Parts: sequence; C-alpha cells; structure tokens
Amino acid sequence: MNKEMKCIDVDVHNDLKSPQELLPYLSEPWRSRVASSGLGFPGHGYWSPVGVVRKDCIPPSGGPSASDPDYLVKDLVEQFNMDKVILTGNLTNSSTIHDPDYAAALVSAYNDHIVADWLPKHESFRGSITVAPQDPSLAVREIDRLADHPAMVQVLMGSAQRAGLGQRQFHPIYEAAERHGLPIAIHPGGEGAAGMPAPTPAGYPTRYLEWHTCLSQNYMAHLTSLVCEGVFEKFPKLKFVMLEGGIAWLPHLMWRLDKNYKALRSSVPWLKRLPSEYIREHCMFSTQPIEEPDDPKQLISIFDMIDAENILMFSSDYPHWDNDMPTEILKRLSSEARQKIFYDNAKALYRI
Amino acid sequence: MNKEMKCIDVDVHNDLKSPQELLPYLSEPWRSRVASSGLGFPGHGYWSPVGVVRKDCIPPSGGPSASDPDYLVKDLVEQFNMDKVILTGNLTNSSTIHDPDYAAALVSAYNDHIVADWLPKHESFRGSITVAPQDPSLAVREIDRLADHPAMVQVLMGSAQRAGLGQRQFHPIYEAAERHGLPIAIHPGGEGAAGMPAPTPAGYPTRYLEWHTCLSQNYMAHLTSLVCEGVFEKFPKLKFVMLEGGIAWLPHLMWRLDKNYKALRSSVPWLKRLPSEYIREHCMFSTQPIEEPDDPKQLISIFDMIDAENILMFSSDYPHWDNDMPTEILKRLSSEARQKIFYDNAKALYRI
Repeated sequence: MNKEMKCIDVDVHNDLKSPQELLPYLSEPWRSRVASSGLGFPGHGYWSPVGVVRKDCIPPSGGPSASDPDYLVKDLVEQFNMDKVILTGNLTNSSTIHDPDYAAALVSAYNDHIVADWLPKHESFRGSITVAPQDPSLAVREIDRLADHPAMVQVLMGSAQRAGLGQRQFHPIYEAAERHGLPIAIHPGGEGAAGMPAPTPAGYPTRYLEWHTCLSQNYMAHLTSLVCEGVFEKFPKLKFVMLEGGIAWLPHLMWRLDKNYKALRSSVPWLKRLPSEYIREHCMFSTQPIEEPDDPKQLISIFDMIDAENILMFSSDYPHWDNDMPTEILKRLSSEARQKIFYDNAKALYRI
Repeated sequence: MNKEMKCIDVDVHNDLKSPQELLPYLSEPWRSRVASSGLGFPGHGYWSPVGVVRKDCIPPSGGPSASDPDYLVKDLVEQFNMDKVILTGNLTNSSTIHDPDYAAALVSAYNDHIVADWLPKHESFRGSITVAPQDPSLAVREIDRLADHPAMVQVLMGSAQRAGLGQRQFHPIYEAAERHGLPIAIHPGGEGAAGMPAPTPAGYPTRYLEWHTCLSQNYMAHLTSLVCEGVFEKFPKLKFVMLEGGIAWLPHLMWRLDKNYKALRSSVPWLKRLPSEYIREHCMFSTQPIEEPDDPKQLISIFDMIDAENILMFSSDYPHWDNDMPTEILKRLSSEARQKIFYDNAKALYRI
C-alpha cells in the first residue's frame, strides 16, 4: 500500500511488560501462582534461532517488544498511518493449559488488563476477548461478560487444541459469539505443546524451521473440521478468522474437500452446499506470513482461485520475527483489491 | 490419454485372497498368529460409507477385488493398454504394527508372495519391496535380500509413521535403497491408527471424509522432514515417490519452506540449496486422487508452478473407491506433458 491508503492491521501482538501486570486482576490461588512462577504455559520444545520477536522494536522505556502502548503507536500505528489495529496479545497459548480453572482465570485477567491498560491508550486500538476453550461454559461466561464493550471486537483462542474446532464441545462458544455478533479468531503458537496432539501427523519435527512450516496443517485440519461438523449450518451468522496460518494451501483444501464431499456426503447430511462455499462465506484469512514465490504472478494466480480480495485481511504480526509491513507486500494487486484487503474487509467484519 | 498412448500405472493395489495366502511364507510364531487371527493391523477407527474398494471389480473367481492376477490383467492392464503396473499391494499399514519382529516377518512373507504368486503371472507386473521401518536393520536386511530381483522396482512403506521420515533412525533404510538404486515410495492408510500420532495436528477428526481429506497433511510433514533433515544431501542419488498424497498443496509448501529456510537456515547448515530444489530433484508424486477444480485451468496453473510434467507419474489406485482411470484425467495437458506423466517419468525412475 501507499501511506495514503487506509489500513487496518488485524494481528498485532501487544505484550505484557511482565506477568506481574496481571496480578491486580487475578484472585487466589492463581495470583500466587503467577506471582511466583509466571504464566506457566506448557512448552513445545522448539527454539527459533532468530528469536520470536524483533529486537529492533524494544520500547525505549524498556520491557519486551510491543509492551509499551505509546511506543507501539509510534513504531507501528503512526509509521504506517494505520486506522485501527486489532490487538491479539500473547495469551492464545492458554488453550494448552491443563487446568481449565487456571486457564479461564488467566484469560479473564488478561482481558481485564486489555480493557484497562491498553484500549484507553489510543483510538486505533481494538481488543480481542481471549478465551480458553478447555471448559466451554467458562469461555461462554467470559464472552458474555465482555461482548458489550465497544472496543472488544472478536473472540480469540489458540489454534493449538486437543480436537478439531468443529467438534461439538466447542459449539456453546460459537453460540455465544454468534449471539453477540462477534467473529471467532484463532492464532497459532502452542502446537505440539505438552497435552496437545503432535504438531504434525508425522509426529514431532526436529526443529523450529519444520515446526513453523507445518503450522498451516493445523489450520487445514480445523477448517476441515469446522465445515464437516456443520458449524456454519448450525451458526449461519458466525464468521471465523484464520490468523497467521498461510493462504496458498486453500485451493488444494477446497478442491480436495469438495471432491471428497461429493463421494462421501452421506456421512455429513447436515451440509447443504459444497464445503468450499462455506469456507468462502464464513472464513477470513490474515495475510501474514504471506507466501513469496520467485514469480509473484504465481501468488496472484492462487489469489484468483480463492477470491482473495474478499477473504483476506492485512496483518503485520508485529513485532514477530517474520512480520510483514504493509508497504512491502501485495504490491501487484489492483488498487481495488488492496483497498479491500488492507481496509474494507476488516472494517466490515469488525464493524469499525 | 488415448488408448494408443503407452501407460505405466504406479499404484495398483493387488490384494490377498485371504491372509492364509501368506502362511507358506511365515515361520512360527507368526504363522499361528496369522492363521488364527489374520494380519492384525492396529485400526484407525474410520469408516468409509462407500467402502474402500470398488465392488464392481470383484473377480469372477471370487475373493476380494484385485486378488486374482488374471482378472486384474483383464480388468485394468488390457482394458487400458498398460505397459507396466507397479503393484503396491496392501501391506503398507504394517508400519503401524507394534511388534517390530512381527512386522518384519509379515512384510517378508508378503514380498515372497509377490515374487512367487504375482510377478510370474504377467509381463506387465512390477513389484515393491514392502518394508516395516520399526526396526530399520530388519528393513535393510529385507532390501538387501530382494533388491537384485529384476522385477522388484522400489522399496515401499507406509506414510503412517511415528516420526517424520527425515529423522535419522530411517537413514539406514535410505542408505540401502540408494546403494541398490531403488526409489523409496510411501503410501497412506494407517494414519491415526493405534500407536501412530493423531492423523491431524488438531487431533482425531470425526469421520472418514475428514480423515481422508487430511491425509495430504502427513505428506507435507514427511516432505518437510526429509528436506530439512538433509536426507537428499546425505543420499544424493535417492528418489522418493509420494503415492496418493495429493499435488495441489505443493506450491504452498515449497514457498513456505523456502521462505522459512532463508530466515532460519542456521539450524540446518547441511542444506546447500533451497528446499524446493531438493523437492523438484528428488521427489516424484503420483496423480491419484487428482484434484478437480470447477475450472480445470486452475489445476493447469498449479501444474505450471511445480513443473508437473517432470515430477508427476500416473496412478489409478485401482481398485479403490476413488480411483482415477487414465482415459478420464489430465485431458487438458499437452501431449508432451501427458507422455511424460503417463509413461516416460515412471519408465526412467523404475528403469523399465
């Protein structure tokens, strides 16, 4: 984009200065747990040789990258003339916590922190209601608690899950989101952590390079599950946002799923349309990490196959190591397509 | 293809009339096990509403589809004027057996059965040395035992594995295959069976429709593993054949892997080229189940991105429910591309 174009960034990872920031919002015994031991997410055991966050955007005030609202405004929002940024934070790995009560308390405290310590700091900030789906009834309670806040624009959870997100245990969460008119976004990070399925169907890869490359597979699995379990028939107004899972695999998945559906539809009698139609109508995808073939026309061909201008939304993933800045990507699209992907699609979805 | 074009079919599932056919080739205690209890593969729990094999190709002599060599010649080889068919059999799920001694005994008996009961029956038949990689040293012994048979043209194993196929425990198998000039083929089927990782990174899907759609993910994971672990640097003459894993996901995987490699290459210092270059040079892919977009030109676009005419080989997957017949697919390719995919590529790979 050029800097005159309006832009909404749908995946910005504001961070905690430290876990201690959550203590005012936690009750016992969780306050003592976090005070003594931090957040305590189960680990997945992979290490990035370039780090997970950029070191060149550490705030002058100290603390981790993206932990200072004022500096985030300066370094991202103002630099790229962003109209809105959707804060996705750093708590989606709460989906991997073993104890459902702790997970629910933690995301609730985190949501309070977003409402109190971030949203008032700048008019561009929009927040996500992070939920932990281990106990769906507690996730529903959290959605009901915060859905009326005008700047909380979506429900957010980790893509690291014990089961495909179409399965019935998750449906109360979708009922609540649909009732409040909020989309559900998912974000990777905890894939393969203790308690989760292996991060690939071939088990645990050796290195972060392989783990990160394979993250898209989890999105393919969840999307297949959401469609086949009939989530979009049961919740016809529900929208899903697939953050940071890649894009160029979509033609393959839609073709394979449609073909298999035609042969095996007797096992999913609740579906009334082709799987690809549900995907196009109900799912949005963030752009980062954008695939970069040597020949950029190949990505344009893929975009044509998936009606990209109507299902993509720009995301930077700031401040992560592989973030995409809006002035650097999607230069070859038409100005109409860029307008939709950088602004209009997110504006409509999030009712901005 | 037209019926005048020569054709090699690289994935034909000859079947046992019954497990009893293996008894002459088994020693105790395995002979008693199979006699009393059949093959005993761990199950994955998914059920196809259309069955797994076509019922319209059951031999007049009785027994399962594709269990009668003479009828397979009549129903497939002669009907489609096939020059050669690569028999891939029905033992690749032996990769899921818990006991490495039983798995090794079973595939060895099966290979003897192929050599004695199938290969002499028709000049078009070529066999695969099925191996069980649970104990790599026993797999190496099996390769060494049969590699000199002129009609055994590849090493074959299940894609259902406890770990990514690039990992070091598998390297002795690759050393043996390379030493004998044999490609390694992998075939799906046991994904998610007891003892294997979940068939998706989102756990166990609910139905066969979802399980089958997600099989491609296992191929993405193995291919990522093979490249990143340096298998193709360590075994520069080794070729891999990816049977029945799909094709249209390849641009995505190559782009994502190349991009991640550029940033994270310090963790795989043994790689000297881009991941996509290893894939193009060392891996072949079978066509079935071919993706079928509404607009066939979209598949041609994907083919252009992956140099399809040099990495694809025709397969029917006869007699499975979703098999592709050679007269029905790839009609829009140039005659030069069809010649390579239906014949030349397999002829060169298998030294036919």
